[in-house]
Amino acid sequence: MTKIAFLGTGLMGEPMARNLLKAGFGLTVWNRTQDKALPLGAAGARIAPAPQDAVRGAGIVVTMLSDGEAVSDLLFGRGCAAAMAAGTLVIDMSSIRPREARDHAGRLAAAGIGHLDAPVSGGTRGAEAADLAIMVGGDPADFARAEPVLRAMGRPVLVGPAGAGQLSKLANQAIVAITIGAVAEATLLVRRAGADPRLFRQALEGGFADSIILRQHGERMETGDFAPGGRASIQLKDLDNILDEARALGIALPLVSALRDRFHRLVHDMGHGELDHAALFLELLDRNGLPAGT
Amino acid sequence: MTKIAFLGTGLMGEPMARNLLKAGFGLTVWNRTQDKALPLGAAGARIAPAPQDAVRGAGIVVTMLSDGEAVSDLLFGRGCAAAMAAGTLVIDMSSIRPREARDHAGRLAAAGIGHLDAPVSGGTRGAEAADLAIMVGGDPADFARAEPVLRAMGRPVLVGPAGAGQLSKLANQAIVAITIGAVAEATLLVRRAGADPRLFRQALEGGFADSIILRQHGERMETGDFAPGGRASIQLKDLDNILDEARALGIALPLVSALRDRFHRLVHDMGHGELDHAALFLELLDRNGLPAGT
Repeated sequence: MTKIAFLGTGLMGEPMARNLLKAGFGLTVWNRTQDKALPLGAAGARIAPAPQDAVRGAGIVVTMLSDGEAVSDLLFGRGCAAAMAAGTLVIDMSSIRPREARDHAGRLAAAGIGHLDAPVSGGTRGAEAADLAIMVGGDPADFARAEPVLRAMGRPVLVGPAGAGQLSKLANQAIVAITIGAVAEATLLVRRAGADPRLFRQALEGGFADSIILRQHGERMETGDFAPGGRASIQLKDLDNILDEARALGIALPLVSALRDRFHRLVHDMGHGELDHAALFLELLDRNGLPAGT
Repeated sequence: MTKIAFLGTGLMGEPMARNLLKAGFGLTVWNRTQDKALPLGAAGARIAPAPQDAVRGAGIVVTMLSDGEAVSDLLFGRGCAAAMAAGTLVIDMSSIRPREARDHAGRLAAAGIGHLDAPVSGGTRGAEAADLAIMVGGDPADFARAEPVLRAMGRPVLVGPAGAGQLSKLANQAIVAITIGAVAEATLLVRRAGADPRLFRQALEGGFADSIILRQHGERMETGDFAPGGRASIQLKDLDNILDEARALGIALPLVSALRDRFHRLVHDMGHGELDHAALFLELLDRNGLPAGT
């Protein structure tokens, strides 16, 4: 079976790597903070002291990092790409800019190394359940080779050439951010009217307004438990990237712009960047002059 | 088995009444435009020439009309309530204002007639599949009596006292309108970047951004087929009602306000009130100076 290197075993990467182990893949992991990789060692992964060690001899290298700079630094700045054999396939599951993904794909191709951009949606719960939506951009032959690995973590779909996975992830994040805004306003309306947000969500199940956001993030808004999940600061980064991409394409996205400004307020004025993005509910309360817990 | 009168067999009411027939209920139907009730006659319903005739002898009266004035006019203006025996139960499945529902419930109670507000979500497809989300406000004993009837049309949940069903429906519509706005922006972004909106929707299945809106309304945006479904003019009415209710509760709902203005533009400036509410995509294209079909 293909030997896999997994670089970046944080909040999302850890359960994803664990599912590769469960599926029987031989796995070498590396994380910047090595402590976070130790539980995977107990589960059967080899822990590499440096990323270059992890990728040596691997047929497939999975990266799950915070942004495009982190991926670029690891691959090209710290010499990971140079340590890979020709014919290696890099599956970058980080959420980065489409143009960065195209750039990485081009630079790796020059060294005979394949590349797929394969960002995910579904959060830590989706990662744990091996039920992530995986949006893939790249070459169909590389996709075929990656598919058994990706299937161990979720449901991959090849949506187009290099960069198309990241573009789809941005469009996905646009929907997520705006839907969180929608659920926040519905939750506030229901709560202020004296009805029960839990029964409200239950009544909506299976209807047009139903979504994972309604069920999971609606519950977070109700209970006030904003442990992440997906961090508000990451959501803000995604919204900035969406607007960059939209500007490059010459289009205006008014709801994305509005949500970007409100997440900016939540993260930078209210200091809640480390909370789950469902904490946009706190921004809505604040905007209404209502204290948290109202 | 309880005899049921069904008043208002339009786009939604017709398939809902048909599911009551399929479930074996004895059904008398009335519609303002009688032609629209004729197919139900062929399916086994008795067709009443006037609404007062329909409700006479019925144990349960279901109403599915366009707005609160239509319901009030039928019940009190045209004497339907006066034609009902004490102990009759009115299930109003129309989408009307919470305060109107509370008013109707109070006036009927004075005549010994029960009332549930039980608006729905799920559109014509949900109505046909007997899979509507049904948000119910009223008395638990009345709910227990109505439940077998409601179950023949969908999944009822009692969310609170009189008016709570309508309030939940408004909150539901807030989510629907905003999510349509979200899917429109994602579809435009994906399309302008040269990726495939159909594969995009497929890739998102089961993830955080997935919803019936993404699948059904996203497809309408892609194909440009805006036959309703839910009309844009009705969506605008709902958004106005949400903002009325929010004002009465002293809260600001910024995304609802933004969508209200854009649906107003779609309906009144662009003249698309009769199209499906997914036609908000046309408003986004127009706002970007792009022709329909772009």
